[in-house]
Amino acid sequence: MPPDRNDLPTSADVLCAAQTVSGTVHRTPLIRSQLLDQLGGANLWFKCEHLQKVGAFKARGATNALSLLPQGTELVATHSSGNHGAALAWAAAERGLPCIVVMPETAPETKRVAVEGYGAKIVTCGPSLADREAALQKVVQETGAHIVPPYDDSRIIAGQGTVAVEIVQQCREHGITPDVIVAPVGGGGLLAGIGLAMAALAPDILVIGAEPAGADDAQRSLRGGVHITTQEPHTIADGLRTTLGRRNYKIIRRTVRDIVTVSENGIVRAMELLWTRTKQMVEPSAAVGLAAVLEHGARFRNKNVAVVLTGGNMDVSKVSKLLAGVEKEQ
Amino acid sequence: MPPDRNDLPTSADVLCAAQTVSGTVHRTPLIRSQLLDQLGGANLWFKCEHLQKVGAFKARGATNALSLLPQGTELVATHSSGNHGAALAWAAAERGLPCIVVMPETAPETKRVAVEGYGAKIVTCGPSLADREAALQKVVQETGAHIVPPYDDSRIIAGQGTVAVEIVQQCREHGITPDVIVAPVGGGGLLAGIGLAMAALAPDILVIGAEPAGADDAQRSLRGGVHITTQEPHTIADGLRTTLGRRNYKIIRRTVRDIVTVSENGIVRAMELLWTRTKQMVEPSAAVGLAAVLEHGARFRNKNVAVVLTGGNMDVSKVSKLLAGVEKEQ
Repeated sequence: MPPDRNDLPTSADVLCAAQTVSGTVHRTPLIRSQLLDQLGGANLWFKCEHLQKVGAFKARGATNALSLLPQGTELVATHSSGNHGAALAWAAAERGLPCIVVMPETAPETKRVAVEGYGAKIVTCGPSLADREAALQKVVQETGAHIVPPYDDSRIIAGQGTVAVEIVQQCREHGITPDVIVAPVGGGGLLAGIGLAMAALAPDILVIGAEPAGADDAQRSLRGGVHITTQEPHTIADGLRTTLGRRNYKIIRRTVRDIVTVSENGIVRAMELLWTRTKQMVEPSAAVGLAAVLEHGARFRNKNVAVVLTGGNMDVSKVSKLLAGVEKEQ
Repeated sequence: MPPDRNDLPTSADVLCAAQTVSGTVHRTPLIRSQLLDQLGGANLWFKCEHLQKVGAFKARGATNALSLLPQGTELVATHSSGNHGAALAWAAAERGLPCIVVMPETAPETKRVAVEGYGAKIVTCGPSLADREAALQKVVQETGAHIVPPYDDSRIIAGQGTVAVEIVQQCREHGITPDVIVAPVGGGGLLAGIGLAMAALAPDILVIGAEPAGADDAQRSLRGGVHITTQEPHTIADGLRTTLGRRNYKIIRRTVRDIVTVSENGIVRAMELLWTRTKQMVEPSAAVGLAAVLEHGARFRNKNVAVVLTGGNMDVSKVSKLLAGVEKEQ
């Protein structure tokens, strides 16, 4: 049974999604770094989703969602200032389906170029979440487009979880089983998907979320047992400024061991280490997993730790600013 | 017979070096990018030497040179402001051999940290080539150290050429033979080594060198038939500011089809494309091969072109300056 987007996805939906997305998205490599192992005091296995289609794991969820559209869907739409918009535009183009992406006028030029490059139509709106939602509703009313949300959606959660299925397979090819999987959490599509995957495939593997201390709604939700739905994020990790989705919260409560927070300095340091030591151009949000290992060393000591590098899309002309710890990219 | 450093190396020396370095240096991956193929109008195969030990192909030459030291050598030395110093320091540490690297006081801090990190001793000197050579001679007189030069050395040339042996093997695994191999040229160790390798293994593969127009001594030497040994380089590609070595010139004349030059804008554009499209953090010198394909498209149209990404070491805090086309890193 395909997951209904109004229900919670199951572990089986993730395993099914792994079949669905295989061949369309990349099986991204798992890389290592002796120096980072030494610094982290652990055996680190980096899953390279910055080398995924559209440069982010979001290609997985978008691909899975588009394989499960209601019959007769002729147009899809979303709102996004980040990787989900590009991923949906790309996945729609792969299926020959038209796509509209509502983007705030403040969205980085690079993201607009990416979405247009995949052939989607951009509708520009004001910068607030309310502006975006209103603009998206207007699109739906005028066009009948089917909405594919960025994270609070069963198809998306199941799709993002496929990364964990690959991690376990690839680690097995190296003769090991990870003790822990660490993934950044923003809206929680990735973390919930990984939690579901591991609950079925390898319940002994701890799933730990990592988020900026300046956007710690997920940690507070999980630890306090009450879903926090508003926050004023302060972090350079632009992909993690959103609050946890409803479905995501419910799944994470059940399947994720803990969520740890990291400092802004820790994110910058981890990003610079990834750039200089692995030569991989990851975006700030993607460095949050390594930052967690470095700032919470005791939890990971001598373990096999899989760390998801979530994406590699950023305005490279602003790299120096990022390294100087400037909060907002734009 | 091991190559004598006063003679020219042969193709056999490169094939022998390929055996020697195997298992000590990485067999770096060969990666592709659909978008860069479209932009270049060719099938591009990028050989990732920025993912090599010490972050540059120089690890190959250093490893080979140290396997061919005169009996009784107890200390090695070189002068370098760049990747060769780090490579020699690393390779010496691998063999438990002490190493001294003469570095100008103007060398980037990141390079000093790398050399010290591998346990070598740094001797600081003035910035000119004469200063460096004098300081190195003094080291040799005082310590009896054996000098391993950065490029004008048979063992080094043979070692660098091993990259081409791997390229041909890896392309074969993909079911193709490259039509062309493009490599940057500074002192010419890499290009001469590739030329030698291809002369023996695959004489039908064209070997083409690429250098900045602001440091075009190799092109002028090759096209004019007279070895030019001085120039005033103006390029952000700091690894390519040296002039062609004597042995290197002799080999390149025999084995390299042509050397093309690229503009500074072309280097910056190619570097940015590699960063944003392949998510690989390459240094400016490493972008010169792609710049050549993009600026000399007609020569490469629809061909299988192997492009050597030579290294990934740079001061990332200066990335924005580099993108703005600022000439000198330091």
